[in-house]
Amino acid sequence: MTRDQKAPVCVLGAGLIGGSLLRAAVGAGYDAWGYNRSEPGALAARVDGFDVTSDLLGVLTRAADTDALIVVAVPMPAVDHILAQVSTFAPRCALTDVVSVKAPVAAAVHKHGLSTRYVGGHPMAGTSESGWAATDPGLFRGAAWAVGVDEGTHPEPWTQVARLALACGSVVVPVVADEHDRAVARISHLPHVLAEALAIAGAGGGDLALGLAAGSFRDGTRVAATAPALVRAICEPNSEALLDALNDTLTVLAAARDSLRDAGSLADLVDAGFAARQRYDMAQRWEITDIRPGDHDWLEQLREAGRRGGVVTSLD
Amino acid sequence: MTRDQKAPVCVLGAGLIGGSLLRAAVGAGYDAWGYNRSEPGALAARVDGFDVTSDLLGVLTRAADTDALIVVAVPMPAVDHILAQVSTFAPRCALTDVVSVKAPVAAAVHKHGLSTRYVGGHPMAGTSESGWAATDPGLFRGAAWAVGVDEGTHPEPWTQVARLALACGSVVVPVVADEHDRAVARISHLPHVLAEALAIAGAGGGDLALGLAAGSFRDGTRVAATAPALVRAICEPNSEALLDALNDTLTVLAAARDSLRDAGSLADLVDAGFAARQRYDMAQRWEITDIRPGDHDWLEQLREAGRRGGVVTSLD
Repeated sequence: MTRDQKAPVCVLGAGLIGGSLLRAAVGAGYDAWGYNRSEPGALAARVDGFDVTSDLLGVLTRAADTDALIVVAVPMPAVDHILAQVSTFAPRCALTDVVSVKAPVAAAVHKHGLSTRYVGGHPMAGTSESGWAATDPGLFRGAAWAVGVDEGTHPEPWTQVARLALACGSVVVPVVADEHDRAVARISHLPHVLAEALAIAGAGGGDLALGLAAGSFRDGTRVAATAPALVRAICEPNSEALLDALNDTLTVLAAARDSLRDAGSLADLVDAGFAARQRYDMAQRWEITDIRPGDHDWLEQLREAGRRGGVVTSLD
Repeated sequence: MTRDQKAPVCVLGAGLIGGSLLRAAVGAGYDAWGYNRSEPGALAARVDGFDVTSDLLGVLTRAADTDALIVVAVPMPAVDHILAQVSTFAPRCALTDVVSVKAPVAAAVHKHGLSTRYVGGHPMAGTSESGWAATDPGLFRGAAWAVGVDEGTHPEPWTQVARLALACGSVVVPVVADEHDRAVARISHLPHVLAEALAIAGAGGGDLALGLAAGSFRDGTRVAATAPALVRAICEPNSEALLDALNDTLTVLAAARDSLRDAGSLADLVDAGFAARQRYDMAQRWEITDIRPGDHDWLEQLREAGRRGGVVTSLD
């Protein structure tokens, strides 16, 4: 079905992720357009030749008329308002999002009665910059794109969302909302927290310390350059999972401190950290080939495969 | 004095830092040679056309005969043994080092009666790799190279060491040992500790988390890929300053945890971290131009300038 493979795409929010998605989708041959809250942001996109306006009603009406796939690409604090508009003006469209947490979005989607055609999404890509000026159609190339396989997910919108992720150059990681949120707490939100703390520690050393800082400090604090409001919008909605990860890390760091103080040794920390990083470096994605959306138990099978590092790289 | 400007250089240890220094010095026109404990490492350097042997006695005798500047480029645990040999076979040579801590090296230098012609050094450059194979003559280009201005430092070896750092493409940051060690605890050793902890947290999320990991995790754990023995050799000798920095960071992280748990907010952490990273990004090196080694109060003046972010970029 050609129609299904390239259904129109309506992107709500033309910041770094939404704008890059719009660029990538257009580049992949999709009929895609978007909304941006600020008119200067929308104008910047139009100047670059993309169909973006600050007229949310018009954009949603067009989505409803063309049965587009709607992509919510605003920060979590703005999601509820956007979904209220979607439920009013385009309630029957397939719906996904690119927000950094999945359970809170799913709850908001449920609240607005939009669950039936919703499939959560989260491309694992970004930079410390934001806004249309930072957009890049290649941002998602080679990235993991989490696509929800929660109970009740329908195969048709799932396939649409997965196809869009693949068309943007990503591989699809099937994952349920809770497990996604616990995972990203560890590999996306905790890195933000530690980067902020490291930046604070470095600046505490004054001009001398900052002048001596080299690669390890620069890389370790890179994401601390992200706009504070954005970091908070990413991390705070995932507080429960982030608290677990942060508490684990406080325990690990306190043990390292005790060992360094009492025995002059960081052996346990360094050996475990090296092994962990090795595991990350060695981790191989493997291709899920035998599960088709809509087959018996397809959601459960995709879930299991995703937990074991499996990814979808193509769909018939 | 041409002789002073390009005195021969004898590098003890041809790993990532020592080997890169040897390559850079030869590239800058120095007569430079080296020692490496392991014969395979020395052979690898010779195959690349550099004069490196595993004959420490021969190397030191040549240094003594040519009045070379000796550069100690072994990890801290091997420093004492190397200095014992230097004090026996080349006690009158100018002496520096590229070890990651300065006060423990200075103490070892003092113990071996080598303080008079010693000037501590520390180029702030590196990668997560090690050994001759990882060496790069451009490693120090644009880097900050800490050069000791402790009480009793003599202008002649200081100038030799500073000239070498400049010839390798670095700028010279004048700093006393204790202040250096406190600074690098924050911007070099703490990044290692946090990277290890982040790697452990990520791996704790299993294949799913590692498969979703993207730039922030990759950058935040980069230095956890460093060989564990090397990380320990870098961090553990600086335990006192590192404990201070680590305790500060535990306090910051615990406060962030409490705020996230009790108020759902990371505002204080994120605002302070962003401001700190901004300060780092904005920090400008300024050129120290009016202080000449050997002038009245030159050490104190260089110390003060270094604390305020000043660097030496040329010497007459």
